[in-house]
Amino acid sequence: MKVIVDLTIVPIGVGISLSKYVAACEDVLNRPGLKTALHANGTNIEGEWDEVFAAVKACHEKVHGMGAPRIHTNIKLGTRTDREQSLEDKVNSVVAKQQG
Amino acid sequence: MKVIVDLTIVPIGVGISLSKYVAACEDVLNRPGLKTALHANGTNIEGEWDEVFAAVKACHEKVHGMGAPRIHTNIKLGTRTDREQSLEDKVNSVVAKQQG
Amino acid sequence: MKVIVDLTIVPIGVGISLSKYVAACEDVLNRPGLKTALHANGTNIEGEWDEVFAAVKACHEKVHGMGAPRIHTNIKLGTRTDREQSLEDKVNSVVAKQQG
Amino acid sequence: MKVIVDLTIVPIGVGISLSKYVAACEDVLNRPGLKTALHANGTNIEGEWDEVFAAVKACHEKVHGMGAPRIHTNIKLGTRTDREQSLEDKVNSVVAKQQG
Repeated sequence: MKVIVDLTIVPIGVGISLSKYVAACEDVLNRPGLKTALHANGTNIEGEWDEVFAAVKACHEKVHGMGAPRIHTNIKLGTRTDREQSLEDKVNSVVAKQQG
Repeated sequence: MKVIVDLTIVPIGVGISLSKYVAACEDVLNRPGLKTALHANGTNIEGEWDEVFAAVKACHEKVHGMGAPRIHTNIKLGTRTDREQSLEDKVNSVVAKQQG
Repeated sequence: MKVIVDLTIVPIGVGISLSKYVAACEDVLNRPGLKTALHANGTNIEGEWDEVFAAVKACHEKVHGMGAPRIHTNIKLGTRTDREQSLEDKVNSVVAKQQG
Repeated sequence: MKVIVDLTIVPIGVGISLSKYVAACEDVLNRPGLKTALHANGTNIEGEWDEVFAAVKACHEKVHGMGAPRIHTNIKLGTRTDREQSLEDKVNSVVAKQQG
């Protein structure tokens, strides 16, 4: 089952600057089988369910390992059985409707 | 790694009434090792990471199997390494501060 | 336009214990016209759109005023034009399907 | 109070293709005072709190007016009092840490 995810991690208890933790998580997500796209409020990820969630778990383990005692994470995820859809497809379908 | 999750599934393409899909997902989540609590906008789940996400995946598979071609899901999740915390602990800590 | 919301605030830069900020936010949300229900991962709110979002804004102002320099918030919200629905209705419709 | 938002709308009861509703919402968000950036799982928005949430409300009204009887929406939002931050700043701070 393929899944498209939007992942936002919020390390808690490490002060106000979170970018180094997000960057470390990006490195963890950058693995074969996953396609990722960083945006201002999270990271979009495309891949097989088990691989995506293994990477999300590895991201939590990495960030805890960097010293964050607590992590709040948001995930939006979509699965569909009617057809294949990529990250690019999702943006393109909206843009096409705007231009139509 | 223990995780506390708030899960909201939104089946798409099956009309406007979603409660039977949410109920089926509840049944799937009701398994040994997980503690769950239904609320108006989702279901809180407490358990080990792998077991929680196996159940979330099984929920998607169940709802697709019921005929939903597309599912949008929201997950809020928290992990912490400083101490154990249960669903009840989280509510109680807020209530205690309100009464304090 | 009536709205049902699930609100989760995560103050950042104030250490690891967040419950006093959540409790203060609960106090702000406890105002005429809004119905609220605290759960383990957030607070469900029912009310008119403008009143709900005025309260959410007041919550942010309150928590910043308590010293939190940064707040990450998650909102799930639902509006519908086909019929009225309360927080209780949403839980009951799922429970009814489970028992059916 | 400035806010950075990630907005995802999910119209319910209008079938499986949602892009025309998202496109209509994009048009509504495209107004003076707001900066927006579409991505695969939502739209990032930067602006003053009242203007951002007026636009989100207008988006719901627009999509209901197009015939969607029910809308599920997710909002991630951030406010901070320590410094100004733009959509670009948020991406750049992560990228800088990756390259550092």
